[in-house]
Amino acid sequence: MSGIRLAVIGVGLIGGSFARALRAAGKVDSVIGCGRNAQNLKHGVELGVLDEWTTDVAEAVRGADLVFVAVPLGAMRSVFEAMRDHLGEQAILTDAGSAKASVVADCEAAFGRLPTGFVPGHPIAGTEHSGVESSFADLYNNRRVILTPLESSSESALTQVKQFWQACGAQVSTMSVAHHDEVLAATSHLPHMLAFGLVDALANRPDGEEVFRYAAGGFRDFTRIASSNPAMWRDICVSNRVALSQMLSSFADEMQSLAAAIEEADGEQLFEIFQRAKTARDCYVDGIEEKP
Amino acid sequence: MSGIRLAVIGVGLIGGSFARALRAAGKVDSVIGCGRNAQNLKHGVELGVLDEWTTDVAEAVRGADLVFVAVPLGAMRSVFEAMRDHLGEQAILTDAGSAKASVVADCEAAFGRLPTGFVPGHPIAGTEHSGVESSFADLYNNRRVILTPLESSSESALTQVKQFWQACGAQVSTMSVAHHDEVLAATSHLPHMLAFGLVDALANRPDGEEVFRYAAGGFRDFTRIASSNPAMWRDICVSNRVALSQMLSSFADEMQSLAAAIEEADGEQLFEIFQRAKTARDCYVDGIEEKP
Repeated sequence: MSGIRLAVIGVGLIGGSFARALRAAGKVDSVIGCGRNAQNLKHGVELGVLDEWTTDVAEAVRGADLVFVAVPLGAMRSVFEAMRDHLGEQAILTDAGSAKASVVADCEAAFGRLPTGFVPGHPIAGTEHSGVESSFADLYNNRRVILTPLESSSESALTQVKQFWQACGAQVSTMSVAHHDEVLAATSHLPHMLAFGLVDALANRPDGEEVFRYAAGGFRDFTRIASSNPAMWRDICVSNRVALSQMLSSFADEMQSLAAAIEEADGEQLFEIFQRAKTARDCYVDGIEEKP
Repeated sequence: MSGIRLAVIGVGLIGGSFARALRAAGKVDSVIGCGRNAQNLKHGVELGVLDEWTTDVAEAVRGADLVFVAVPLGAMRSVFEAMRDHLGEQAILTDAGSAKASVVADCEAAFGRLPTGFVPGHPIAGTEHSGVESSFADLYNNRRVILTPLESSSESALTQVKQFWQACGAQVSTMSVAHHDEVLAATSHLPHMLAFGLVDALANRPDGEEVFRYAAGGFRDFTRIASSNPAMWRDICVSNRVALSQMLSSFADEMQSLAAAIEEADGEQLFEIFQRAKTARDCYVDGIEEKP
């Protein structure tokens, strides 16, 4: 028995898989799940992901050694507010938000300070499925998790959060909040904007339905991420608006230059861009693991 | 014996698979392959794709009933020039170029007129592999083929080209040259520009190598098409420069508006765009067949 009590706020794919993985690794002794949907939480108990459940954040965090917040970014602030007066002094607090500056701001606003036990985090993992019934203990195995420890974070909290993630099989790195938000804007948020934007632009064409009929496999792959959850992505955009809006705007400028090179039939420049891109992708991206 | 003699100019994945499919369907009696690389052509004979080979376009088309041109767009003009004085009056001529206006212009420039047997075409099919050794008889099975018959094309030529493709298992549609080039700009050429452009933009960042390390499965799918052949894509851009440069430029404008909506944290507008895109993709794109 580890004696560790884990509270998972937001029991879906991410929260549920974290609980399963830590339980499988023998790192937690009891798990309480918290969310707004009692039915979902009961299901989490039936599946053996949770031992107990509550819809009350205060009750969930009371007596918890480790609190994992895996709610949508738009709900972070209210969750932090609800736990403020109930989180133990020694408790470790971490989260799974895919933008970090906004989570830190929400936490500070709710608590009036940043708790020393708070270590923001972001597991780079997921599937196209959601909900606790999709959760599995291996979700984080060999996946990257980025922690963005703050000046306020205690050494001990950082060490423990790192160890919990390593127990899930994750490869943990640390970086600053600002750098995290830039890296994620580049590799995840910007591509999602382009995929959503492209599908929407084609759907708005008068011949939209016909156009999709002639789309081939490459289009299917390219736009897969446009099937992601719209509310989640609205939250991500708003949360990471500074880094993302700048990056999207400067990418749009580059696409205007590319359009000009195409119009001028500047074959040499086009070849150079495509060649550099192919080389970079073949070199760096082919190693990224396929989805399970 | 069908008695039909097929000449394939450019014996790679596309040309080789066309020959294999028509042979398998019993629609051609003999196949001569033509290209610049004798080794590749000999290999085509060994594989049973070709009966004969030559590096001389004039020799290949002499006596051919059906000529299929599957060379890069940048080589179309010289191929048409080389066949001009040797193509039979009754011969059917078609091609596989992924932009059509430029192929038609190249043909007209080479011949000084448009042959009545010429019916431009574009099979929407392919794999990430290239070369005659990757060709297979089923490549076009259930895939779409767009024909763009010209005013100069004879009814009989159109009917025959349609029947040849149907014998390959393809679903044949016809549309105008201009509409084809717009549809392909939207569904194929524009996404390729975004994928090439994104990977190149990230690779050019000072922290590029690190950035790719944190890319997840979604990025892998989104950028798969950036591993495509740079020379082929240079040719496509130049060939379809009018439709593509306009579409890319107007898409870049839309991305500037999206960047502004993100900067202003306009959650309502963002949600609407993402929701529309998700609905369109789930509705239209999920049916697109996976690659073999």
